Amino acid sequence: MPFYALQIEYDGAPYAGWQRQENAPSIQQLIEEAAAPLNGGQPAATVAAGRTDAGVHAVGQVARIEIALDLPPERVREAINARTRPHPVAVVAAARAPEGWNARFSATRRGYRYRILDRPARPALDLGRVWHLPRRLDAAAMHAAAQGLLGRHDFSAFRASACQAKDALRTLDRLDVFRDGDEIIILAEARSFLHHQVRNMVGTLAEVGSGRRSVSWPAEVLARCERRLAGQTAPAEGLCFTFVSYDAPLEWG
Amino acid sequence: MPFYALQIEYDGAPYAGWQRQENAPSIQQLIEEAAAPLNGGQPAATVAAGRTDAGVHAVGQVARIEIALDLPPERVREAINARTRPHPVAVVAAARAPEGWNARFSATRRGYRYRILDRPARPALDLGRVWHLPRRLDAAAMHAAAQGLLGRHDFSAFRASACQAKDALRTLDRLDVFRDGDEIIILAEARSFLHHQVRNMVGTLAEVGSGRRSVSWPAEVLARCERRLAGQTAPAEGLCFTFVSYDAPLEWG
Repeated sequence: MPFYALQIEYDGAPYAGWQRQENAPSIQQLIEEAAAPLNGGQPAATVAAGRTDAGVHAVGQVARIEIALDLPPERVREAINARTRPHPVAVVAAARAPEGWNARFSATRRGYRYRILDRPARPALDLGRVWHLPRRLDAAAMHAAAQGLLGRHDFSAFRASACQAKDALRTLDRLDVFRDGDEIIILAEARSFLHHQVRNMVGTLAEVGSGRRSVSWPAEVLARCERRLAGQTAPAEGLCFTFVSYDAPLEWG
Repeated sequence: MPFYALQIEYDGAPYAGWQRQENAPSIQQLIEEAAAPLNGGQPAATVAAGRTDAGVHAVGQVARIEIALDLPPERVREAINARTRPHPVAVVAAARAPEGWNARFSATRRGYRYRILDRPARPALDLGRVWHLPRRLDAAAMHAAAQGLLGRHDFSAFRASACQAKDALRTLDRLDVFRDGDEIIILAEARSFLHHQVRNMVGTLAEVGSGRRSVSWPAEVLARCERRLAGQTAPAEGLCFTFVSYDAPLEWG
């Protein structure tokens, strides 16, 4: 049976996360069932690059899907989109998956964007897309602090207790923080992340931005490897999975 | 009674527009009723810079509001926001209105942004925020065509039949079109606009972007002053009222 790669965009708000669950709507279930007519009426199995949590958004999630029919990738994209309507989930592009390619294990880099709205008024147009913190944050201090987390480390201090990874060693390649009007934008890139790693780093950097903690504090927390020392887990709604890179050439259509 | 200026952000989707209407929710009614506790229990009268249509968003709408209480502007902002929750309408800033200032008639410039998503897949995360056109548009051709509409003209060709303005003479100061990834962004600025003018110009420029019409066509349509010659009215959901400028010094708090 042919494998395809799907690039998927979604609003995470109505879902319990990417992963299929009993008694709760998931993006995985929606996609797999939407693809059933291409798969002899059976839900089509998927493997995703990142199993985003409840409420987390994506503009560049990638999943591998196995379907019975041999079709041009655009037809797969269109057929799934016709059946996910009117849900806020869309296949942006599809490609034939190269031999041996796995959406999760072949990934060489993943990117996330986190948005904080730091103004007194609560969000209106961006409700559900940002973490609202009513006091102004110091973006430059947050950026300086973030640079102390780059490189290969044991990220246990920023790891959810539910994290299933074998070890906490990860290489953080990018953690940029900058201001855009009334927003603080945080861009994080790594080959892979631990469960809640980005949200825990953001919650920790927010402590620096508010002035409650020093610029050197996040790196000290990292070195201590204890989750209880770090800041809060920033809310899911501010997080968006932006891209995944692969060495394999994917011809998106 | 003191006058205040309010800077207001809203998601236009749930509303019949800014203006109060019988039997339909409006942003004006929501704000005026939220301010009632500051006004002896009576809805507080407002005048807005732009009476946005049903479904049109705003990040920088400005309204004048008259309330009985003499309060610091931040308190006015907070009191209204506490009572508009959980609706997607928020007062971003408030200021004491200078003597004789009118949110509508004192405006010297208004700015709008229009977003077109021009990719095959329908929008997911930006559903209700963009006009979806499945075929790729030529942003450079649209920008070139837009420059032919700048300056002082009779804009009858881009005016809604319901428009109540006395004449159609307006001065268009900016109409920039550029690509941002899978989006075409259109920025329009003028002292004032006719009813549906931005959406009618966008619908007309889209005809150029798709290649159905030449770069010179929008200026020809303008010169003919006939609405029926122009393109369709672009949908409300792609439009956002971004700012209003005044000569009067407003000290936003």
